[in-house]
Amino acid sequence: MSSPLTCDSLWSGATFVTLRAGQYHAIEDGALAVLRGKILWIGPKAEMPEIHAAEHHRFAGGIVLPGFIDCHTHLVFGGDRSAEFEKRLNGVSYAQIAAEGGGIISTVKATRAASEDELLASARRRLNHLLAEGVTSLEIKSGYGLDIDNEIKMLRVIRRLGEQEPVEVYATCLAAHAIPPEFSGDGDGWIEVVCNQLLPRVAQEKLADAVDAFCEHLAFSPAQTERVFTAARELGLPVKLHAEQLSPLAGSSLAAGFDALSADHLEYATEADARAMAESGTVAVLLPGAFYLLREKQHPPVAAFRQHGVPMAVASDANPGTSTALSLRLMLNMACTLFGLTPEEALAGVTIHAARALGIQASHGSLETGKIANFVHWPVARPAELVYWLGGQLPCTVIYQGERRESSL
Amino acid sequence: MSSPLTCDSLWSGATFVTLRAGQYHAIEDGALAVLRGKILWIGPKAEMPEIHAAEHHRFAGGIVLPGFIDCHTHLVFGGDRSAEFEKRLNGVSYAQIAAEGGGIISTVKATRAASEDELLASARRRLNHLLAEGVTSLEIKSGYGLDIDNEIKMLRVIRRLGEQEPVEVYATCLAAHAIPPEFSGDGDGWIEVVCNQLLPRVAQEKLADAVDAFCEHLAFSPAQTERVFTAARELGLPVKLHAEQLSPLAGSSLAAGFDALSADHLEYATEADARAMAESGTVAVLLPGAFYLLREKQHPPVAAFRQHGVPMAVASDANPGTSTALSLRLMLNMACTLFGLTPEEALAGVTIHAARALGIQASHGSLETGKIANFVHWPVARPAELVYWLGGQLPCTVIYQGERRESSL
Ligand SMILES: [Zn+2]
Ligand SMILES: [Zn+2]
Repeated sequence: MSSPLTCDSLWSGATFVTLRAGQYHAIEDGALAVLRGKILWIGPKAEMPEIHAAEHHRFAGGIVLPGFIDCHTHLVFGGDRSAEFEKRLNGVSYAQIAAEGGGIISTVKATRAASEDELLASARRRLNHLLAEGVTSLEIKSGYGLDIDNEIKMLRVIRRLGEQEPVEVYATCLAAHAIPPEFSGDGDGWIEVVCNQLLPRVAQEKLADAVDAFCEHLAFSPAQTERVFTAARELGLPVKLHAEQLSPLAGSSLAAGFDALSADHLEYATEADARAMAESGTVAVLLPGAFYLLREKQHPPVAAFRQHGVPMAVASDANPGTSTALSLRLMLNMACTLFGLTPEEALAGVTIHAARALGIQASHGSLETGKIANFVHWPVARPAELVYWLGGQLPCTVIYQGERRESSL
Repeated sequence: MSSPLTCDSLWSGATFVTLRAGQYHAIEDGALAVLRGKILWIGPKAEMPEIHAAEHHRFAGGIVLPGFIDCHTHLVFGGDRSAEFEKRLNGVSYAQIAAEGGGIISTVKATRAASEDELLASARRRLNHLLAEGVTSLEIKSGYGLDIDNEIKMLRVIRRLGEQEPVEVYATCLAAHAIPPEFSGDGDGWIEVVCNQLLPRVAQEKLADAVDAFCEHLAFSPAQTERVFTAARELGLPVKLHAEQLSPLAGSSLAAGFDALSADHLEYATEADARAMAESGTVAVLLPGAFYLLREKQHPPVAAFRQHGVPMAVASDANPGTSTALSLRLMLNMACTLFGLTPEEALAGVTIHAARALGIQASHGSLETGKIANFVHWPVARPAELVYWLGGQLPCTVIYQGERRESSL
């Protein structure tokens, strides 16, 4: 006769929406047992084996989902660009704004001028908005330093956020984000520094979990991207790519050839890109906030992604220029309203498929036995409500690594 | 020698963005004195006369704006339509959803089935989202009852919200919102009930501050609208109109002919409509949340409104079907991103011009001596930041009728 199981906490009294395999797979009147920060058991309460729980938390209805994962952000930056935002709406041209030092270069200047502590403090304020809406893991990219010291500084700030805040942070080196002012007209020169000096140091100091680049006419070419990817893979770092945002360069196919974790944006991706991504298991990360704020017209090929079985994630792209999003839940609504995703696809896009875009799908992104106990209780009747309400902040209870997390807003 | 002025509270340490005449008119290092719930004095602190203040509140920087006014909402309703929202995104046709009893009629059924207390409780939850973002006055419409008793019930709930919650509520009778199921094919029949039975009772019981209608092919004709307006004006009630949302019927010109407070939506309004509205002082209320969620393509004629001097307001249109907005600040961003308003125009649209859309511009909507002391402190550097950040909930301090209001979220 075996003795009963024991667990640290048991959670019941709600419908558990597991998102297993990217579908709701809802368990009505479910129960979830946590042991040492992981899910020990999940299923219908009526089928639960005998488990001795140190604590039993009963929700009064509502739904429980996996913690949200924001798999594409630029949350660390200096300054903001609200003045430039207003100028543009007042009719000042992009050319004029660039001539006045606006655009990404103004963020690079402000980021370089800021101390690590200043960057940490401003990023924490923005992070708190995401945490208040149930984010338990997120990715943050460098890419506003654009010299060795300042890229390292950004990555250190990202690592410190992960150490200090109750959220799992994944760092991505995006040194190939834009051509630094010091390398104007010489993108190859900066790529050489990135590949030969920066990335080896980043790898050695374990400052990044992945390497990213911006493949676009106004940034880096496919050939330059390939050099970055080759260097990253030699150092054992997985890659991802800003691809096909403004024009079709087959960057996502290139990324798939390097077994990229994800290709992101993808408004101009083709069916051939979708096929390549499906073969390599590369996730399509959709960023509707940037699409919306840039008033784009070209939609990502959602039908092709569905047809070829490319997993779709949804992320905030939080950044000071093109996606000032402070809400991942709003991105769910925009993914459905602007791109035609279903609520189920959108919610899979911020859970299990977002986990895959970070390479953590074995341990994160769904409510399954053995996974990290990151989950959120929402006092709503059905998951689609999280997508349906436009803006506002729905109250939620976040359980992070098995423990209740207090709101920081 | 005159004795110094006295006031109940003095507020300083911030930039006061007055929105006088629809422009920022920012006062750096300003001061604002409150006496008996009204603004006694406002100006640069250095120019302040001697005022004895019972309390002196010093902000540590940031900006102060008038309290936000949401001048077009349908915040009181039964049920929600998230299941229908999901069905549509899963590819079910509008016809099929209507055949299954979906659409506005499902909200009418749920509203009729709900008690006053139930309607009050669910509306309060949604209202709290708006209050948390600095709304100090709002309008709420009936229009989901669609019979005499249930329209009266809705208006009573709206009045009770205004009595119980720390916010000024203006009630609008929108009985001419849709043709009730009992009058299918007989819109004239319902209009007769509205004009001869409902409106006289609403006026006698002082249950509404204005009368509204939905002038559209799928609702009521201009001729039917005119009958409602005539009845309303005979009862001394001002009018407003849902006009030109889906097609041009010159509803806004008709409204202007009745000196309407506002015409709302207006995607299909013409230059002639703009001229008529300018002459009558009718406010153009823009509702970008509905435009966004309905994936509309036709933009309201903002240039014509500017050219002819039609004041533009911005509102949430909060409702369960076409604008599930819980955030007026998000509507500011959408008014700029989708309709091309400037941040200053958008902010005037939720303050002084929204006040005009409710007929309260003499006492509300800007920071001027003699006006009600409804104002909000935001810890940001410039007003455009309120528009720039997409989603999330910026913390703010609300002073309502001269007193600090606690957050209810
Ligand atoms: Zn990005
Ligand atoms: Zn409306």
